Amino acid sequence: MKKSLLDVIRRKKRFLVTMHAHPDPDAMGSALAMTLFLKSIGKDVRLINEDACPRWLAFMPRVKLCQKYTGRERFAPEVVVVLDCGDLERIGKVRSLVPEGALVINIDHHITNTHFGDWNDVRARYSSTAEILYQVLKNAECRFDRDIATLLYLGILTDTGSFGFDCTGPHTHEVIAELLRFGLPVSRLYQKVYETIPVGDLRGFLSLMNRLEISCGGRLAVLSMTRREADVFSRDFDVKDKVFQMLRSVKGLQVIMIAAEVGPRRTRINFRSRDGFDVARLAARFGGGGHKKASGCFLDKGLKQAREAVLSEIRKGL
Amino acid sequence: MKKSLLDVIRRKKRFLVTMHAHPDPDAMGSALAMTLFLKSIGKDVRLINEDACPRWLAFMPRVKLCQKYTGRERFAPEVVVVLDCGDLERIGKVRSLVPEGALVINIDHHITNTHFGDWNDVRARYSSTAEILYQVLKNAECRFDRDIATLLYLGILTDTGSFGFDCTGPHTHEVIAELLRFGLPVSRLYQKVYETIPVGDLRGFLSLMNRLEISCGGRLAVLSMTRREADVFSRDFDVKDKVFQMLRSVKGLQVIMIAAEVGPRRTRINFRSRDGFDVARLAARFGGGGHKKASGCFLDKGLKQAREAVLSEIRKGL
Repeated sequence: MKKSLLDVIRRKKRFLVTMHAHPDPDAMGSALAMTLFLKSIGKDVRLINEDACPRWLAFMPRVKLCQKYTGRERFAPEVVVVLDCGDLERIGKVRSLVPEGALVINIDHHITNTHFGDWNDVRARYSSTAEILYQVLKNAECRFDRDIATLLYLGILTDTGSFGFDCTGPHTHEVIAELLRFGLPVSRLYQKVYETIPVGDLRGFLSLMNRLEISCGGRLAVLSMTRREADVFSRDFDVKDKVFQMLRSVKGLQVIMIAAEVGPRRTRINFRSRDGFDVARLAARFGGGGHKKASGCFLDKGLKQAREAVLSEIRKGL
Repeated sequence: MKKSLLDVIRRKKRFLVTMHAHPDPDAMGSALAMTLFLKSIGKDVRLINEDACPRWLAFMPRVKLCQKYTGRERFAPEVVVVLDCGDLERIGKVRSLVPEGALVINIDHHITNTHFGDWNDVRARYSSTAEILYQVLKNAECRFDRDIATLLYLGILTDTGSFGFDCTGPHTHEVIAELLRFGLPVSRLYQKVYETIPVGDLRGFLSLMNRLEISCGGRLAVLSMTRREADVFSRDFDVKDKVFQMLRSVKGLQVIMIAAEVGPRRTRINFRSRDGFDVARLAARFGGGGHKKASGCFLDKGLKQAREAVLSEIRKGL
């Protein structure tokens, strides 16, 4: 019989919980839920991430348990729980806190996971790490509470694009049904996660959107953004993410491209696609990478030149 | 013991299924699912609506079963199944097809439902008529299939705002889990429902959005639209709906108002609100009505005057 997580951790005392740098709600929610569970069974546990918690996630319950890595930590964990990471590199500098001989627990849903742990629970068909963790915690006889339920809910909500991605299966909704029994304020949480345009950035966002160029018979949308244009937005506003999100509701677009000036001779390109157009392959041609529907690359060219170089490649395929 | 639907319909032969005029996916999906169920148990059933099925819902399975009312129907149903209607008026002209003495079955989730049926299944705490109908059909020993599952799924998906409204409870997700077992293509259905800006309308939509006025310290957003401005959009594009949808992602807005010119001395106003601001009461002051968070009214004034009249009322409350 497969060892359960409870067997693994029963005799250990000191735990480090961590996740990938630049945490999203699935990573942060899973890490916080795991930390709360370990605390509830009396373990000595620290939650450390390379980055501080992003401000837009500051509303998550018990978020103050998460500490930013400083390099001055004095802590020798016996067990390291790594959440939402395809490989151990993704925890970044926190790696220096993993002692030789520590037991590594790896819980993740990425198909590319390298099974780097001593104990691995990797389920690529699950929507999110939070969905797997729900099962792991249930098997470990975790006493769920409203905080843990909220944290797992937020991970699943966001990694499924509000239950709209194909990774959303019957099991996903079963887990959510269980979590909602803790009386979660559905619309308030939804707002926290998706109402993310600061009102002061709306004007700038709309005028940027107005410069969108549509071509290839309505199948291609391109937006170029100079550094000066990008700098008008407040720090917490992820303008690219909002552009992609808004264009998601436009019919017929197959490829969306954002070209953003990094320096006079350096440009960042991000792609999103639909209907089978493979932007991972497209990005790879410029030394970048990613998924079939979402990818990116850097070009050592100025904004205009980079834009033209990429467009001529896209037009070949569209 | 309460009579089940199966008892009610067992000895009847001819059924009329209908729902409110201007059907949305919950009404249309529920009516089609009910029709399929009645057909599957050998009933003579017709599905008639005052309006033709809107083009954006043409992708729904078995949608051709729905006929537009013509007034020339020769059909004397023994049972009329009314779905998603708070009162019988909402079925519009189809009312003339309801014979004296016909048994009326009323399945609905509106809190204002008048219990107009001979058999009523009204559950105001449910997210949607489709969520109730799932239970009704299950109790009636319906053999679910992929079409019925898809139809109920679409009703629940849209009436919960993709599971983001507070009407979304544990039961909602349990039902969805069951429906997804029929192998529904989640992201394709999501796209069909939410990718609703025709690419040809994008430019006009963005330039309209650019004219949005924000005031009251970022709490109020107002958009005025002349008839000429509204007429540039293609018939299938619900521009007001998209304005509201987009502004949903802006932080801090409490009231959103769209003023649309109907004629030289007539203006339609629509409101959405958040954080407890009651726009039903606001609309009522102008003879309109609706819900606390979504309402509307007509004013017998030109666009500018109507706008000013309403704004001065709003400012008293904000």
